[in-house]
Amino acid sequence: MKITKLEKGISLKRPLEGGNEEQIKVVRQVLSDVKVQGDAALRTYTEMWDGYVPKSLRVSEEEIQEAVSELDPQLYKDLAEAAENIRFYHEQQIRSGYRLELGEGSWLGQRVTALDAVGLYVPGGTAAYPSSVLMNVIPAQVAGVKRIVITSPAGQKGKLPAGVLVAAHLLGIDEIYKVGGAQAIAALAYGTETISPVDKITGPGNIYVALAKREVFGEVAIDMIAGPSEIAVLADDTAYPDEIAADLLSQAEHDPLACAILVTTSEQLAKKVAEEVEKQLLNLPRQEVARASIEKFGVIYVAETLADAVEAINSLAPEHLEIVTENAEALAEQIRHAGGIFIGRYSSEPVGDYFAGTNHVLPTNSTARFASGLNVDDFVKKSSIVYYSKKTWSDNASKIARLARMEGLEGHARAVESRGWEKE
Amino acid sequence: MKITKLEKGISLKRPLEGGNEEQIKVVRQVLSDVKVQGDAALRTYTEMWDGYVPKSLRVSEEEIQEAVSELDPQLYKDLAEAAENIRFYHEQQIRSGYRLELGEGSWLGQRVTALDAVGLYVPGGTAAYPSSVLMNVIPAQVAGVKRIVITSPAGQKGKLPAGVLVAAHLLGIDEIYKVGGAQAIAALAYGTETISPVDKITGPGNIYVALAKREVFGEVAIDMIAGPSEIAVLADDTAYPDEIAADLLSQAEHDPLACAILVTTSEQLAKKVAEEVEKQLLNLPRQEVARASIEKFGVIYVAETLADAVEAINSLAPEHLEIVTENAEALAEQIRHAGGIFIGRYSSEPVGDYFAGTNHVLPTNSTARFASGLNVDDFVKKSSIVYYSKKTWSDNASKIARLARMEGLEGHARAVESRGWEKE
Repeated sequence: MKITKLEKGISLKRPLEGGNEEQIKVVRQVLSDVKVQGDAALRTYTEMWDGYVPKSLRVSEEEIQEAVSELDPQLYKDLAEAAENIRFYHEQQIRSGYRLELGEGSWLGQRVTALDAVGLYVPGGTAAYPSSVLMNVIPAQVAGVKRIVITSPAGQKGKLPAGVLVAAHLLGIDEIYKVGGAQAIAALAYGTETISPVDKITGPGNIYVALAKREVFGEVAIDMIAGPSEIAVLADDTAYPDEIAADLLSQAEHDPLACAILVTTSEQLAKKVAEEVEKQLLNLPRQEVARASIEKFGVIYVAETLADAVEAINSLAPEHLEIVTENAEALAEQIRHAGGIFIGRYSSEPVGDYFAGTNHVLPTNSTARFASGLNVDDFVKKSSIVYYSKKTWSDNASKIARLARMEGLEGHARAVESRGWEKE
Repeated sequence: MKITKLEKGISLKRPLEGGNEEQIKVVRQVLSDVKVQGDAALRTYTEMWDGYVPKSLRVSEEEIQEAVSELDPQLYKDLAEAAENIRFYHEQQIRSGYRLELGEGSWLGQRVTALDAVGLYVPGGTAAYPSSVLMNVIPAQVAGVKRIVITSPAGQKGKLPAGVLVAAHLLGIDEIYKVGGAQAIAALAYGTETISPVDKITGPGNIYVALAKREVFGEVAIDMIAGPSEIAVLADDTAYPDEIAADLLSQAEHDPLACAILVTTSEQLAKKVAEEVEKQLLNLPRQEVARASIEKFGVIYVAETLADAVEAINSLAPEHLEIVTENAEALAEQIRHAGGIFIGRYSSEPVGDYFAGTNHVLPTNSTARFASGLNVDDFVKKSSIVYYSKKTWSDNASKIARLARMEGLEGHARAVESRGWEKE
């Protein structure tokens, strides 16, 4: 792992995959076909791209029960405990609206209501993680969303991963479809004979899924378009090199494009971590993936002061940040931009991926500057309320009419002025 | 105005303008030019599309002072009072994070922090409203955003509307640029020599602006892509027809594509409102615009019951909803989807456009199903925090490691297991 002196303005930002014109064209065709032809288009594209003809687009109760019976009961218990922790953390995010009395009988309000229906896209292959089902579904449930749908490509065998079905079952979700790709996004956005449309689509996918989400954005809500995962570790000489190395590799094993960075004030730690990374790579099952990530994107920065290190972290705005230093908690107060912060030696980042209760869907690619991890707010919307009494109206009508006329909107002014005493 | 019987499944949803391939190509070229050439590209495109060569891209202090001195002092006072009301309403939306004690010294947290920098795009021409400056800037200020930038096309004369400059001045905003179109969005997203990049872009614009926002989405945050404005009025026979007609026209005068709908249980009211609309149209300054809107999109629905009417409103999910009925406040409780709700005779919708304090940037085109009006939450982001003590770690490490191995992520399991008693 490369060791280098910390300079100002380091960045882990990588270009977003925007898709080429051919890909956009394909996606627009799929969206339009599903919109017009419904289920028939879903079947056609599923056969074309997944290589099998679905008898039923929806996963049956038997398939779910089979998956549950296959799973080690201990794992089921672990998943259930994780779900409980996630629910507990997210329940603190429930909000009510407010009502502001203005006097004279008038008031303003804000009302918070849940979305009616949400769809979770689960990508195919090895990225179909049960933990992701928990992380996407639970905040929606806590928000009060009544209908939650999962859709995922079933591959050539026409089967979804057991872990995904079990996680869904554990949460009481049984509306699951074997549809993937842009066609799944189209079905969730527009609806088909079998799949009713939803109001919001969450979950990552390949470039076609990402482009499709971008296209339907506005028609329905979508979550952020996620990039490869990242970790930044901020450590001083109190940290154990083998632990830091293991945490860096836990990110690196996700994806050759994943990014693992250490920022440290200790030159000695830097060297030892670099050695440990090499050592641990040797017998890591996903060695090839992790090595590609570490070689291309892994860097150890040696900072002169902790203040410099903190500034560097804020300019990185990493998805995950571990702080393994003396007074780590105090140092965390200085972090302005990070998706998830893990404080102290025992808060290894995978603790949050699976179990602690915080959400593992976090903003990547420096978007922690403006975005948040998935949370209950993502599944509610707010309405404003105005109640003006006759007195408040008559006190303010002339001001409002003047402002409207200033903008050339005479009809607005007249609407406000149309209310009159004389009619009563 | 057309009167029709209410049937199930009415909709005011209109197709989103997605842009054609040529427009997307132009926008991508502009974005890439500004990214590479910076200010030079801004000057080139400003000359090409606005028809003038800017001496300085930034509005000078003198230009702002000139605008302020030109404005009627009474209007300045009205704007200031509106700003105060808007601030008061939005201050209720400020949130703090939370800290959850888990026992054994462990805790989880959520921290809420403001975005560093935000850019407001103000469209050119008649749509450059001072009230929009208040509505976009104040929530960002309340959230604690330190840097707020305004950018707007200055047209052939190279001048921004006085009202926009005054509204900005009133709020203490002096970083204002005379740049419009896709090039303005590019400058805000990527930065140039003169314009530092921001973290979020809000404000409406033409198709090129909308496409540019869509393209930079992910690189920076953007607000919703707004459609034409809408109002739905829910009224019974207690409503005054001239007032309802005036309110419908206040929406219709915005845009030939605007949509004004009345849903009523009173056939008599329906007829009288239709007559009043015709009558009031005759001497409305923006008669042409309003008439086009009313003819194309204006409908009066007569419902058999109030319950049917409420169901219709919920399926419309209108941007603005007025409820002018007996027990209007109780009826409002049954509304699940609406951007802004205006209750009772004296809460004419323009009250909220300018003055009451609620935000007038509201979700259009049925997106109130999943989206909210602009609010303080739009300008903050949340970080999650995990602090695990040694005891909590040792109690749970094996569970976390099992879950990681279930997903085939051995590196995650080893990271958690790497912490050990023996090293201390």
